[in-house]
Amino acid sequence: MRMVDLIEKKRDGQALTNEEVCFVIDGYTKGNIPDYQMSAFTMAVYFNGMTKQERADFTMAMVNSGDTIDLSEIEGIKVDKHSTGGVGDTTTLVLAPLVASVGVPVAKMSGRGLGHTGGTIDKLESVSGFHVEISNKEFIQLVNQNKVAVIGQSGNLTPADKKLYALRDVTATVNSIPLIASSIMSKKIAAGADAIVLDVKTGAGAFMKNLEDAKDLASTMVDIGKNVGRNTMAIISDMSQPLGFAIGNALEVKEAIDTLKGNGPADLEELCLTLGSQMVVLAKKATTLEDARKLLQDAISNGSALQSFKTFLSSQGGDASVIDDPSRLPQAKYQIELIAEEEGFISEIEADSIGTAAMLLGAGRATKESTIDLAVGLVLRKKIGDKVAKGESLVTIHSNFENVEEVKKRLLSSMKIISSEVKAPKLIIENII
Amino acid sequence: MRMVDLIEKKRDGQALTNEEVCFVIDGYTKGNIPDYQMSAFTMAVYFNGMTKQERADFTMAMVNSGDTIDLSEIEGIKVDKHSTGGVGDTTTLVLAPLVASVGVPVAKMSGRGLGHTGGTIDKLESVSGFHVEISNKEFIQLVNQNKVAVIGQSGNLTPADKKLYALRDVTATVNSIPLIASSIMSKKIAAGADAIVLDVKTGAGAFMKNLEDAKDLASTMVDIGKNVGRNTMAIISDMSQPLGFAIGNALEVKEAIDTLKGNGPADLEELCLTLGSQMVVLAKKATTLEDARKLLQDAISNGSALQSFKTFLSSQGGDASVIDDPSRLPQAKYQIELIAEEEGFISEIEADSIGTAAMLLGAGRATKESTIDLAVGLVLRKKIGDKVAKGESLVTIHSNFENVEEVKKRLLSSMKIISSEVKAPKLIIENII
Repeated sequence: MRMVDLIEKKRDGQALTNEEVCFVIDGYTKGNIPDYQMSAFTMAVYFNGMTKQERADFTMAMVNSGDTIDLSEIEGIKVDKHSTGGVGDTTTLVLAPLVASVGVPVAKMSGRGLGHTGGTIDKLESVSGFHVEISNKEFIQLVNQNKVAVIGQSGNLTPADKKLYALRDVTATVNSIPLIASSIMSKKIAAGADAIVLDVKTGAGAFMKNLEDAKDLASTMVDIGKNVGRNTMAIISDMSQPLGFAIGNALEVKEAIDTLKGNGPADLEELCLTLGSQMVVLAKKATTLEDARKLLQDAISNGSALQSFKTFLSSQGGDASVIDDPSRLPQAKYQIELIAEEEGFISEIEADSIGTAAMLLGAGRATKESTIDLAVGLVLRKKIGDKVAKGESLVTIHSNFENVEEVKKRLLSSMKIISSEVKAPKLIIENII
Repeated sequence: MRMVDLIEKKRDGQALTNEEVCFVIDGYTKGNIPDYQMSAFTMAVYFNGMTKQERADFTMAMVNSGDTIDLSEIEGIKVDKHSTGGVGDTTTLVLAPLVASVGVPVAKMSGRGLGHTGGTIDKLESVSGFHVEISNKEFIQLVNQNKVAVIGQSGNLTPADKKLYALRDVTATVNSIPLIASSIMSKKIAAGADAIVLDVKTGAGAFMKNLEDAKDLASTMVDIGKNVGRNTMAIISDMSQPLGFAIGNALEVKEAIDTLKGNGPADLEELCLTLGSQMVVLAKKATTLEDARKLLQDAISNGSALQSFKTFLSSQGGDASVIDDPSRLPQAKYQIELIAEEEGFISEIEADSIGTAAMLLGAGRATKESTIDLAVGLVLRKKIGDKVAKGESLVTIHSNFENVEEVKKRLLSSMKIISSEVKAPKLIIENII
């Protein structure tokens, strides 16, 4: 088998066999296939796509390119959740204890990552003492005991995907739905998921700017999951503005606590109930999405979801008293209000730009070497559609430095106020099950 | 400027500016742009093509990537000719002295190359003493004096094209008409051509298997030439069977001599007159193709074309007496007839396969290190449409070894004989001027 023939085959719109897909991925991972052939291949995929079978084969070939996590000692169906980016997305912090509290095992491997705020681990480390340096054995024990635990990334998972992603990034082949879908799915499967729930964001603040692409990506991933024996569901959700109010590490932990108490932002709660219901159904803890939602709502109202978060934090060394007293979380030195200069209705909150403002405060990492400030960030006071009076606060800026003029300037230019009424965008656009 | 953005631009079907094209070619030649970006770019070109302006810019950027030959000291308009491959193509050997004899300066830089037979230089070296190791100064003097001279390739011409071609070869991006066209045109322009005549072959034995692609390639090259100030004409000619009768180095020199005497194969003579007429018009030695053809026919019938060949050979050390006595050319030890096993009409002579048969005899080079046998090769006795009786010779095999069973087997399977009459294919399919 020669790579040049397989490039030609894909260039001419033909489908590769499983043997051919494995030859490509295996050869590329081992360095037998050079970057210049792989990039020509991915560009041909960009133009000609892949069949359902090819996508499934490609995904599993990437899973098999490295280590896989064995979660078989954990009782029950392990359901993982993935969101395609977004700003101020606190869902993981809420969902993990919430679905665990109704018996769904959550065995989360998480990272720190680059971006507007830290990753899930950074956020959780806002809780004094909390740590993810636990052994695999301890991790599995904790999940069996508490139904939820988080561990740092370890092992050489999907090296093919890592290498391929780096190549796609510099060859203008990131934006190919079969390649995005197989990349995401391979990582979830290698991390041991039996079933997967996907939150595909759409809108100005999302990776998928338009709805058609988001739907296409979501159904591609659902198809891949089903084809490789991992039951998968997805939703399409709006990311035309940041989710919830908080953008920042400790601020998002506080918002998660509020949500688990039933006092969170309406959009964040709704998204968590929607995604959580899918997780509960996939874990076979309920048969319908309606029943599942009822279970989750009860867990919030009877306090078991909050208790689950407490147990989870303290089991991994965290000071669980923050749940009853969130003021024990890191606090920024200054809380500065961003005042509306005109009255009207909020018509736009540019999520990406708001995220960058949070980064300017120190909430995120620009490079792997950056240190992040867990205390700082933004709390939105208004969302799209809200009425604003002149002089009212639009955003509370939590900062450890006093001069936030640049942040204010960026925030003001990211939030548009118009005189006519604006309808709030619909949050959950579609369920793909 | 970042290469990834230019790949994206081409991927999205937009045209690159001249500045951007130069950035790509210059960066790639110097090694600042890696192969993996260039291969993704060429695959995007494969799918989205290039505008007329981009093709011209791309060609000139490749010309400017290395040395160019300065032929300004040669009087008159230097017209170069290029054929897109084919088998048994003796046109260059005929055309060079033929057009020179009517005053068109032929300053030919030529190579040895790989293939079924040697390159033009190998063929000419069948003439004892002939050599191309002459200085640039001598080369220019000879052209001014005799109107024709041949020199070996020197200098670093179109390094961008060399590097890019090697990459395209292993990334399934050879078959892109804008890339083929700019590759050919850049080499001709760098070699000093003021005007260019192109012979684009089509049919089973050609690179362009179908007529549409051949026309597309021809008009793309004509457009490029005109866009960059090099007057260019093209013809589309049939290569469904080998051209002329001879395939082999000395054998083709003999066939060229016959043709210059007016006794050559009809198809070879016709092709030379057609291409030659375009060369004469482009060199402004006649105003119409009809007038030009008349000039060339006269040069053949009055002996001046043959005299031009003599002068050319002896000026570069060759034994010109071969022209009056072609038996002085290298002769193979054995001349073996391939006998028809059935009667009928020739319906197919698979040119590629016939060429490979000549290589098996030693007429061509498989690798750069191979040595070639100038004496050996094939002389067809029949062409498509000819009637054949059982026991008649189809091909004379000129070999330096006696056992030619493998060659015979290949030849028999390459020539199809059927019972019903067959029309000879049309040789000159189209003029593109």
